[in-house]
Amino acid sequence: MRILALDCTAGPASCAITDDSRLLASFYCHVKQTHSVTLLPMVKAALENTGLSVGDLDALAVTAGPGSFTGVRIGLAALKGLAAPYSLPCVGLSTLAVMAEAFLDTDCVVCAVMDARRNQVYNALFRIENGLAHRLCDDRAISCEALAGEIAHMRRPVELIVTGDGTDVFFPYVKELKNIRKAGESRRYQSAACCALLAEKAVKEGRTVTAESLLPVYLRLPQAERDLQAKKES
Amino acid sequence: MRILALDCTAGPASCAITDDSRLLASFYCHVKQTHSVTLLPMVKAALENTGLSVGDLDALAVTAGPGSFTGVRIGLAALKGLAAPYSLPCVGLSTLAVMAEAFLDTDCVVCAVMDARRNQVYNALFRIENGLAHRLCDDRAISCEALAGEIAHMRRPVELIVTGDGTDVFFPYVKELKNIRKAGESRRYQSAACCALLAEKAVKEGRTVTAESLLPVYLRLPQAERDLQAKKES
Repeated sequence: MRILALDCTAGPASCAITDDSRLLASFYCHVKQTHSVTLLPMVKAALENTGLSVGDLDALAVTAGPGSFTGVRIGLAALKGLAAPYSLPCVGLSTLAVMAEAFLDTDCVVCAVMDARRNQVYNALFRIENGLAHRLCDDRAISCEALAGEIAHMRRPVELIVTGDGTDVFFPYVKELKNIRKAGESRRYQSAACCALLAEKAVKEGRTVTAESLLPVYLRLPQAERDLQAKKES
Repeated sequence: MRILALDCTAGPASCAITDDSRLLASFYCHVKQTHSVTLLPMVKAALENTGLSVGDLDALAVTAGPGSFTGVRIGLAALKGLAAPYSLPCVGLSTLAVMAEAFLDTDCVVCAVMDARRNQVYNALFRIENGLAHRLCDDRAISCEALAGEIAHMRRPVELIVTGDGTDVFFPYVKELKNIRKAGESRRYQSAACCALLAEKAVKEGRTVTAESLLPVYLRLPQAERDLQAKKES
């Protein structure tokens, strides 16, 4: 089963192609340019390098959020554009669940955190055991203090690994706790590679949608709407 | 410090650019095409995506072996060609040490194995502790039986993780042992990303060489030379 996946929910943009859980191509770039400039050339290069065209794929996958509002929309729009002409089945995945996928070979609790500004992180917790990830809470926007408090009171016989682009923001809140560490640079960021690997399981379980019905997951209102709401209330 | 790294020692080919231990670009492809076709277009794309030219780099790095004879030579030749016009300092790294770099956030023993055919693997063992890798033996070509025997007799309070493209060949020899597992797909193969991250440490310690003096590390004689030797001896 061949899957092409995209991610551009935050700083990095990436695209990957897997075939039966084997990574054929993974193109990742983390630069200041906007994803609308970097993403599609990487898709083109990944297809060329693997000798595949979009019609050869069995499904498309994307990180549907949480993440930056613009980034999430670029990823979904690109995926919809690729999928529509071939009516390919699509999978939209939680960016945080995709992050946890990089830790399946490590028995631990994964604390995935994305910097959501204003002293908040987008977060979910996963217990990894025997190669499987068990979700411990829904994706949420949470203050660093509240999340640190939750972790301090967690019964946890295994190590907790903090990962994601919110690591440097959040880690200072928990650094005094025991049995806790930061993810290494080589697996700290969400990637299309892990998105494709996780999507394959979703496709096998029939959890696909059409390109048209794929929806972004923002968790919070955009800044402009928050400002408008505050104005109305004042 | 900006480093461009290449790897094409075995099945995958990849190139990556890091800046002060931060991954700017990582292009990876694992297809049937020869590395001489896939590698340089990825280098071009990685440079374009990061807005850099070769002259902007501080050093170049490559996995210098062990690995396939042809693959190792393609990587070294490409690196020498890129480095020479700018007299850039170069780093040649053990493919096996580069593999261990993906596990720095996991306290464990890394058993890196590359399929060397004829029931042998290229192997080295590393103890990962507090984010540092300690080499436990030199790179070597070893039979699966001998390596399994060594691991069975190893005093080892932590988990042992088998990684590399030799995992499926070697793992059956140790699968009955306790406290041992396979690396996940997302970090099982050598990558230019980890090569660049490890190379940065080498550059900081002054362990660079000129492009001309960079040498391949084969560990074994090529098949043609082994055949010739056998002929002479018979």
